[in-house]
Amino acid sequence: MPYETHLLSILFSYEGEHVSGKMLSEHLGISRATVSKYAQSLKSMGYHVESSPKLGYRLKDYSSLLIPKNIKRGLRTSVVGKKMLHFFEISSTNSVARQIASQFVDTDGTVVVAECQTGGKGRINRPWVSPLGGVWLSIILKPNVSPNETVQLTYVTAVSVAKTLKTFGLDARIKWPNDVLIGGRKVCGILNEISATPDRVNYVIIGMGINANVDVAKLPLELREHATSMMRELGKPVDRVALVKQLLMEFEENYKLFHVQFSSIIDEWKSLSDTIGKRVEIKTPTERIEGDAVGVDTDGGLIVRTDDGSIKRVLCGDCLYLKMSER
Amino acid sequence: MPYETHLLSILFSYEGEHVSGKMLSEHLGISRATVSKYAQSLKSMGYHVESSPKLGYRLKDYSSLLIPKNIKRGLRTSVVGKKMLHFFEISSTNSVARQIASQFVDTDGTVVVAECQTGGKGRINRPWVSPLGGVWLSIILKPNVSPNETVQLTYVTAVSVAKTLKTFGLDARIKWPNDVLIGGRKVCGILNEISATPDRVNYVIIGMGINANVDVAKLPLELREHATSMMRELGKPVDRVALVKQLLMEFEENYKLFHVQFSSIIDEWKSLSDTIGKRVEIKTPTERIEGDAVGVDTDGGLIVRTDDGSIKRVLCGDCLYLKMSER
Repeated sequence: MPYETHLLSILFSYEGEHVSGKMLSEHLGISRATVSKYAQSLKSMGYHVESSPKLGYRLKDYSSLLIPKNIKRGLRTSVVGKKMLHFFEISSTNSVARQIASQFVDTDGTVVVAECQTGGKGRINRPWVSPLGGVWLSIILKPNVSPNETVQLTYVTAVSVAKTLKTFGLDARIKWPNDVLIGGRKVCGILNEISATPDRVNYVIIGMGINANVDVAKLPLELREHATSMMRELGKPVDRVALVKQLLMEFEENYKLFHVQFSSIIDEWKSLSDTIGKRVEIKTPTERIEGDAVGVDTDGGLIVRTDDGSIKRVLCGDCLYLKMSER
Repeated sequence: MPYETHLLSILFSYEGEHVSGKMLSEHLGISRATVSKYAQSLKSMGYHVESSPKLGYRLKDYSSLLIPKNIKRGLRTSVVGKKMLHFFEISSTNSVARQIASQFVDTDGTVVVAECQTGGKGRINRPWVSPLGGVWLSIILKPNVSPNETVQLTYVTAVSVAKTLKTFGLDARIKWPNDVLIGGRKVCGILNEISATPDRVNYVIIGMGINANVDVAKLPLELREHATSMMRELGKPVDRVALVKQLLMEFEENYKLFHVQFSSIIDEWKSLSDTIGKRVEIKTPTERIEGDAVGVDTDGGLIVRTDDGSIKRVLCGDCLYLKMSER
């Protein structure tokens, strides 16, 4: 993946000028045929790369990149995304957002976005594969709420992502606690990290990884079966700039609602839920719960009815769907 | 270079635990022999990588990394480096510093540092090769001076770098306008960028690229002849953390002096100059000047005496040393 990102960032630095295949081949230390292959791959992911046998390669315009100029144009938000940092490649947007939130004061609503992550993480430090074509994005928030309440922001985020994906014609559903699915396959993961003292939140980092124009066939074998991308579902690349804009506006709206009426977020969550009604196995660091997912409560806990008829409430954990036959 | 950086960042993420060669080989998609080669290369650059036939590889401690924790310990500065961002790999520290300075208010003195840059730049957008082992560092400054005066910060920086290198036992000399040399070969380049209106400086970004533990033999052929590294000159890797600490303290001291008595910086610059006394050819966008470099004035302009006896003053440009025989 590094070579593709490097190729993209070189073309970006040439500001729309053509760069010869020979020069790119020398610069990257790969054959001209490989340069051509990578350029083709960039094109297939919706990057506006053009090639010409005579002139070489160029990035026709920047409109396919998640650079602040593109995202901010027509972005109707008052806080979220007013400040933005863009990277071609970075370890993880959450880790950069954490660094920034811990160093500077005026960071509320700052968005950190990358074309590609080399060290993306999911919950419990699990690796999250984040190639070019996806949307790897973190939002820094400084909500005036108690640390306990920040778990609710995962619901805010999941609802925002699912509703945004719906505007692209995709039937997105939310899998508790932090995934968004299309047709039962993961298209987005959410990672909600906080820095807090017992009584006060310093900052929250909301990380989202959306397989927008990710080529699922290139994902590691073990992920392929359970993952999908917007591109795969729609049969063509999506406009990632439009996607991010829509997502940030949707997010800000739901974030405002979270402060005044979280119950309406929960209602939306329920209507978008893939998990309620399913037979589930929940693993937390301290217990394993099997039963029927019957709802979520107003604080954001999943309600599971176990076979002995008791009702359990879980705030976070790994959720496995069980087939009904395993009942 | 990407593989080495990736290997380093994976070992970092394992927090001192061993990672097997097999796992690294699978993760990076390279052979175990190549993993071993890269680990050896990291070691040769002073990174504390350990290998054990049974246990695999690990980063013994983090003391060889330019992470804020290491730099801040014992750093006696009041502004410079009080805020720090660290990256394993990034396009360029100047471009990230620019993004940050343009988005946040409280950024004065912020240091951005990377273990490796993929899109490092020198003056006039020239590529600056920035592999692992070097010190690629930018400082954000918000001095209360006129835009014209910011050119003087290149002198402040060159003096700071040269004096710091001297504390490592190296005879560093300054080549006008923005290089530091050892034995006539470039060991450091400086890139001073500003954002300003005609009457007011928004911010200055001081970029420095120091070939600390760079393996000169791995640089592109055309650079090798004219470049050196601290490691090459000393015959062993330097402690980059100590180097950065010393540099930031030296810089802050000279930065304070710049505000109250720039002439003393110029005096130091002169005593460290490699250029004064040389026959030079200076190319600027508008002219070409050949003559003897005879001094610098109090504003930071190079004084050149041409063969017709006239005195020219140049603020910035490309400087080529001419052999006396070319006179």
